[in-house]
Amino acid sequence: MVFRTDDCGKGRQGVSARVVDCISWPEIRARKIRDRDALLGRNAQWCLKEDVPEHIKDVSQVLQAHLTEREKEIVHCDATSLVERLASRRYTATEVIKAHCHVATISQALTNCLTEVFFDDAIARAAELDRHMDETGQVSGPLHGLPVSIKDHINVKGHDTSTGYIAWAYNTVATKDAVTVEILRKAGAVLYVKTANPQTLLSLETNNNVFGRTVNPYNRTLTPGGSSGGESALIALHGSPLGLGTDIGGSIRVPAAYMGLYGFKASVARIPHAGLRGPHDGMEAIIGVLGPLARSARDLALFCRTMLQYEPWLIEPPLLEIPWKQTVVDGADIPQRLCFAILWDDGVVKPHPPILDALQRTKRALLAAGHEVINWVPLDHQAAWDLIVKLYFLDGGEEYRELQINDPMVPQTEWILNQVPNGGKPFTVRETFRLNVERETFRCRVAAHWNGTKSQTTTGRHVDAVISPAAATLAPPHDTTRWWGYTSYWNLADYPAAVYPVAHHRASQYSPPDVSADITLPQVPRNDVERFVNSQWDPEIYDNAPVSLQIIGRRLNEEKVLGMLNVVDRALNNVHN
Amino acid sequence: MVFRTDDCGKGRQGVSARVVDCISWPEIRARKIRDRDALLGRNAQWCLKEDVPEHIKDVSQVLQAHLTEREKEIVHCDATSLVERLASRRYTATEVIKAHCHVATISQALTNCLTEVFFDDAIARAAELDRHMDETGQVSGPLHGLPVSIKDHINVKGHDTSTGYIAWAYNTVATKDAVTVEILRKAGAVLYVKTANPQTLLSLETNNNVFGRTVNPYNRTLTPGGSSGGESALIALHGSPLGLGTDIGGSIRVPAAYMGLYGFKASVARIPHAGLRGPHDGMEAIIGVLGPLARSARDLALFCRTMLQYEPWLIEPPLLEIPWKQTVVDGADIPQRLCFAILWDDGVVKPHPPILDALQRTKRALLAAGHEVINWVPLDHQAAWDLIVKLYFLDGGEEYRELQINDPMVPQTEWILNQVPNGGKPFTVRETFRLNVERETFRCRVAAHWNGTKSQTTTGRHVDAVISPAAATLAPPHDTTRWWGYTSYWNLADYPAAVYPVAHHRASQYSPPDVSADITLPQVPRNDVERFVNSQWDPEIYDNAPVSLQIIGRRLNEEKVLGMLNVVDRALNNVHN
Repeated sequence: MVFRTDDCGKGRQGVSARVVDCISWPEIRARKIRDRDALLGRNAQWCLKEDVPEHIKDVSQVLQAHLTEREKEIVHCDATSLVERLASRRYTATEVIKAHCHVATISQALTNCLTEVFFDDAIARAAELDRHMDETGQVSGPLHGLPVSIKDHINVKGHDTSTGYIAWAYNTVATKDAVTVEILRKAGAVLYVKTANPQTLLSLETNNNVFGRTVNPYNRTLTPGGSSGGESALIALHGSPLGLGTDIGGSIRVPAAYMGLYGFKASVARIPHAGLRGPHDGMEAIIGVLGPLARSARDLALFCRTMLQYEPWLIEPPLLEIPWKQTVVDGADIPQRLCFAILWDDGVVKPHPPILDALQRTKRALLAAGHEVINWVPLDHQAAWDLIVKLYFLDGGEEYRELQINDPMVPQTEWILNQVPNGGKPFTVRETFRLNVERETFRCRVAAHWNGTKSQTTTGRHVDAVISPAAATLAPPHDTTRWWGYTSYWNLADYPAAVYPVAHHRASQYSPPDVSADITLPQVPRNDVERFVNSQWDPEIYDNAPVSLQIIGRRLNEEKVLGMLNVVDRALNNVHN
Repeated sequence: MVFRTDDCGKGRQGVSARVVDCISWPEIRARKIRDRDALLGRNAQWCLKEDVPEHIKDVSQVLQAHLTEREKEIVHCDATSLVERLASRRYTATEVIKAHCHVATISQALTNCLTEVFFDDAIARAAELDRHMDETGQVSGPLHGLPVSIKDHINVKGHDTSTGYIAWAYNTVATKDAVTVEILRKAGAVLYVKTANPQTLLSLETNNNVFGRTVNPYNRTLTPGGSSGGESALIALHGSPLGLGTDIGGSIRVPAAYMGLYGFKASVARIPHAGLRGPHDGMEAIIGVLGPLARSARDLALFCRTMLQYEPWLIEPPLLEIPWKQTVVDGADIPQRLCFAILWDDGVVKPHPPILDALQRTKRALLAAGHEVINWVPLDHQAAWDLIVKLYFLDGGEEYRELQINDPMVPQTEWILNQVPNGGKPFTVRETFRLNVERETFRCRVAAHWNGTKSQTTTGRHVDAVISPAAATLAPPHDTTRWWGYTSYWNLADYPAAVYPVAHHRASQYSPPDVSADITLPQVPRNDVERFVNSQWDPEIYDNAPVSLQIIGRRLNEEKVLGMLNVVDRALNNVHN
């Protein structure tokens, strides 16, 4: 049977049932994959000639052998460096996009990170930008010639937005760019790929029935994280310098952490967010944030600065008219001596040893740099999770279940849908009012807790930032994620948070850290989740996984968080290229 | 039967039924009024010795005969002038508060504007402030000694918060100040009265079964507006220089307009809002705003500036950390030549002639001052009303009905509850998501409409502000309000708007204005509401009513709106005292 989109309905309502009438999910999946691979196959010169044998877990270095020196130089630039070198005409937009198309093609073969591919458009656009540069000697915008990759559920005009749902495959060609995408185009960025996200989007791994599973190139038995896991795998392999993700519980920060990248979740309504496809349009009890994943801290600011330069609040009403203050990122208004508070353990799930070690290293580095470091006392992490799950599923999970008729649940979908509260029944309107009050009460408690640190610092201020794990584990084996509390907590609080890399875990070099001088950790699991996570720890399993942490600031202090991230980066001797 | 609060439950849930078990609403009302009047009666020297005969409609000048010259001087100051004179020790806090207690006592007798009275506390606090000044020579804060009146549903610690509900009378003594009240105290303000609001708060008049009806002192057959109608009556009579109101559909702006005052509704989340008592706690689909009513434009800025000076976002999480930019209010960043757009008619209900005349006068004044003036094309005013009513009643009006068991509906309650959508049934959660999407779609349309004016201006910018009626009528006869669209529209859009006075309507001097050169008005009513409002017009009925307008700016441009209000005020030769 030939698949015809006309048979299968369009738009979001009631699509699933009609798709099912036409064609089974394995057929849709086969066709989506075939279409993507055919587009990649058009440039045979960029394709891997043979698969990497399955027993080789670390594929992160595979592509080195396939690139020219010039390509290597280009794809090893961070975004900031690329736009500088494009502006100074050291590189043409054409060679930059081609190098990234090449690496993206290999990245796909290694990790299964791509969904939609539009290299031809990208190369045509790059040629146009090069002509503009030739004719005017000027860049066409602040991101002139920069390749940017886009998470699947963000609308890119003319491309399917299947978002990991069989029901949406071939039914959701975007008629309009998301606001961020529109700005990227104005700014001169070159769009060339969309990247995988998991079924439901509510997953910290990346797996769906449309394109299958995305894997971690540092260790293919591990997840690259999710829901922006196509991005994290692609960017870590240098197939993209900068990617757009989204985060309503950790979906930027966790994949960034698992892949050793930088990732930033701003406060709600600071960065454009309109033009996403996903369930629960109009749900406002808990709102996600769109943001960047990249290979340097400065690229996070580059993205935010560019977005706000275009005054997006004039076209996207929820956005706050708060212009970007780059001077703060660069250090203005950031005191010389800061006080950081470290969250060692959230009171629910103790982090694995390499994460505790990273916290300790960060502490030592900050003290050595002259800053103050105190302990952050965890507050209500289990309660925060219990509440945010209710907010995720105000409709009792109805819409998720409807969307997945004949689209079997992948394991992480099954896990999260097992958390659905209220016996799977929708809450009443009045119950949703009460849940909003609970959320505000939580936010008041967090604010008061933060204000209260003033009595513990010697700076005369409350703590400037919290340093925290981004997750309790390094990138875990597929389908074993069980605890979001280190990231989802800050979505519930609506505080900005950035992830940064600290180290790589090498099983062969591992020795257990001693953090007893810093904090007392529980010897016995405090709950079933912690029991599960504790039992996961084995240095061999996580071999080669990046070790990352998270820095958190007060709501709407995006610039200050990125400014303090620079402070931490310098203390840790993290170097940009 | 003696009323004992212990018999009747406390808190909000299920109170009404239990109150009814104890005592009937007329008894509760009698007791509330008796208690208030007893407190006022303690200062017999401030009370009117006899009632003003009922046939005298205009009571606005009555109190002149009862005040000393010094008292008159004090109560005729605006808030800005008062804080200056208190700071320079021209007045003591004690004499300032006593003068206002005196006038408030008379205002109550003339208009029934007060609910809770706490003169003793106020006088004690003023004495404390005077001692502080004597000892230090310094003010205790930016509002040192300023009397500020508080709308009933805003929590003031230790005082009942009956909010126009029988069920809440004597059951709702606040245990904590609202955030605004807390800041007022820190800033040195002196609190002395709370003021009437209507049953449900969803009314642009002021009438309830606890304290009865509040009347317009310029013409007692008219309403002073609502829901902040106790404030507007009191401030117009100089019984308060500055009062706190709230506005979710016009409840600051309409009473300010009906009483010839200045009133300001900021964008949501700019001004502290926590600590209000009212139905629908946790409802976020449409959110009200707390703001000032006063007798000068500069007092609106004084209030906002003071609130934000205390960094309330550190304790009230929804608030935006956007510090107050007084320099913008004072003219910085406001172009010399502005372009204003006038909304003559919202396409649903044509304004009464004095309002059209005021628009025309404003237009002439702005043109004479060198500004540009274009027409604002109305967009979706009926649709906006139809939508906002759904958002007001997401629960199908359930909570309102529950609260009013044995608390009969006053006429305006009956009118608004007749607007309840969905057959009085609560919406489902998924329907509320769709309504949120509708609201955002509306906001996008308004933003695009505003952006689109750029092609019509000669300034190179879109219009800087919209000048609009605040209502279709002047203060109407009691129980006849039928159209909120001129104000509620900007709540739905979440744009800041300030009301300012233009004139007083004198029946004896009235002649119909000719606005035909500016706009074509419909000759035949376009709908039943307009038919009703058209038929209301009679210059005699509205004799002595103030004529006011509204200025609106883009979301979160509070300072710019107040800066442009200054421009309009100067063009109209409005003078502060």
